[in-house]
Amino acid sequence: MADLLMFSEANALGHSVAGSTSPNPPVGCVLYDSTGQRVIGRGATEPAGGAHAEVVAIRDALHNGESTVDARAVVTLEPCNHTGRTGPCSQALIDAGITRVDFLFSDPNPVAVGGADHLREHGIDVHGPYLPLPYCDETRSSFQWLPQFSVEPWLVSTVMKRPHVTLKLASTIDGFVAASDNTSKWITSEQARRVVHEDRRHRDAIIVGTGTVKADNPRLTARGEDGTPYPQQPLRVIMGQRSIPEDSHIYDAPGRALHIRSHDVKEVLADLRSRGIVDVLVEGGPRLTGAFLKAGIADAIQLYQAPAFLLAGYRNVECDANLASTLDDIQRFTPRSVSTLGSDILLSLSH
Amino acid sequence: MADLLMFSEANALGHSVAGSTSPNPPVGCVLYDSTGQRVIGRGATEPAGGAHAEVVAIRDALHNGESTVDARAVVTLEPCNHTGRTGPCSQALIDAGITRVDFLFSDPNPVAVGGADHLREHGIDVHGPYLPLPYCDETRSSFQWLPQFSVEPWLVSTVMKRPHVTLKLASTIDGFVAASDNTSKWITSEQARRVVHEDRRHRDAIIVGTGTVKADNPRLTARGEDGTPYPQQPLRVIMGQRSIPEDSHIYDAPGRALHIRSHDVKEVLADLRSRGIVDVLVEGGPRLTGAFLKAGIADAIQLYQAPAFLLAGYRNVECDANLASTLDDIQRFTPRSVSTLGSDILLSLSH
Repeated sequence: MADLLMFSEANALGHSVAGSTSPNPPVGCVLYDSTGQRVIGRGATEPAGGAHAEVVAIRDALHNGESTVDARAVVTLEPCNHTGRTGPCSQALIDAGITRVDFLFSDPNPVAVGGADHLREHGIDVHGPYLPLPYCDETRSSFQWLPQFSVEPWLVSTVMKRPHVTLKLASTIDGFVAASDNTSKWITSEQARRVVHEDRRHRDAIIVGTGTVKADNPRLTARGEDGTPYPQQPLRVIMGQRSIPEDSHIYDAPGRALHIRSHDVKEVLADLRSRGIVDVLVEGGPRLTGAFLKAGIADAIQLYQAPAFLLAGYRNVECDANLASTLDDIQRFTPRSVSTLGSDILLSLSH
Repeated sequence: MADLLMFSEANALGHSVAGSTSPNPPVGCVLYDSTGQRVIGRGATEPAGGAHAEVVAIRDALHNGESTVDARAVVTLEPCNHTGRTGPCSQALIDAGITRVDFLFSDPNPVAVGGADHLREHGIDVHGPYLPLPYCDETRSSFQWLPQFSVEPWLVSTVMKRPHVTLKLASTIDGFVAASDNTSKWITSEQARRVVHEDRRHRDAIIVGTGTVKADNPRLTARGEDGTPYPQQPLRVIMGQRSIPEDSHIYDAPGRALHIRSHDVKEVLADLRSRGIVDVLVEGGPRLTGAFLKAGIADAIQLYQAPAFLLAGYRNVECDANLASTLDDIQRFTPRSVSTLGSDILLSLSH
């Protein structure tokens, strides 16, 4: 147990609850026996007010009839040192007799910090953090081509004091989102649509502009393969000053929709933060995407790319200001993964 | 031995001589002993007038002290049945006592066709073709995400009666090749440059426009890591009616340069075909790229992609005509591979 790979199961546990834990982080924890070879318990953050991942994993081990004495814990976030609605996780690990803890990221939350020190003071062999916090020095090269970790949006939100923002784009390789006559259904692969719905269900909120609602009247729910909406839905946010029809599909159940009458990106994000929103997916048109890029607020990009040329039409990003007049102004992102969706390509980038 | 994987070593042998065999195809051949487990000989096409891959592989086996009786041959192209400057390969395989032949593509060359039938008539167990010819029905789905095979340019050239054309593009994910002030050195990674030079050395010719020569004055030689030009250089072709300075670097040794005073894509390609050119790489600016796409002549795309946004500047493709006014006019390509070059991405597509 000495590299990033060991966090993959804990990260998958965290991902499984992403979208249901805010304002808490979707953490995953795996407990091993004293040899470090056999898994004895697994846990992920419960919805706010419920137990944290470490406590869930300890309970799981005991429920399995396992002893946690001399066990090892692998967890995606530094165990908290904070008594909030639940007791501190670091103390729970000490009480359970755990002797080694590996954690992926430090906890940047000022009220929860100090968990690793507390564990060390109690003689526990603590290893971590394995990665620097996002938006710290050297972050880019550290993260290049690594998979996305489920606690990242929460980390960014905590560090930047605003929700984590992922921009979703879909375009041709020459950068067009629709042809001149506005025909645009070019990502036809069933696989791509399924990935979008899977993505939505793990977000706290989705943002679109009033223009998209008026033009396409989308439902924007997260639906399974058979079209059935998932029990848990992200908040659907419409941003912009124009009114939209009250019978727009975006207001349909299940889930809630919210019209924030502002076209100011920072204002909208501040409003969402006050509602406990940590992780948002922006599924806007080219102007909304441009507004976020212009504001310098894009923590991640999900680019669904058709290996095709249109040569003319509507561009994937529209921006009033001549944002990047020289190469020094380029907004460069870090590639995290490339995957294939039928005949299309999904490129995941982060700040 | 029953799938595409078995061709990978033969294909690599063919690739190693690509750029030196035209007008003949860069074929690779691997000979196995009768068990099909042990390699006894390897061969690739010699320069025009020299031996074909099968004959080279048989010679290699005999040179290694191996017997070719009851041996098996794996070859990337159907063995020819044609007595040209060399005898027919199918007869050479029969004479060597080979009992099984697996070939990847049929030979579409009317004068060479019939090799597989000739082998079968002599009782040889023949398997192939494993892939359809490019530009035939069902080709796209057959080739999706397969690696590029070294005989493909020759196959396309033979079927389409013009050189195979690869367009090289380098741009941001919003489709820009340079910022508004024309600063454009955004692909800075050493890895990307190395791949471009490796690519050039395996082509018969490189095409640029007069505008690129006047603006950038490039050398366009294929150079190794230390900057030394490779012994074998592609023909450097400048297309366009404007004159260029006689002391332009593109005329510098080593290798040859040729100015074809035409901006007509088909005319230029016909001229090159008459000179025995099979495989060209178009390294033009956005207008030249647009001219090839507008003419519908683009067999492959090498897209070097920076995970970055410029939001404004010079587009990667410029085209006078409103080529794709509706989605039905989209020029869609088949993804063949995605690779990473430092922090950039190389997307290889084919027709």
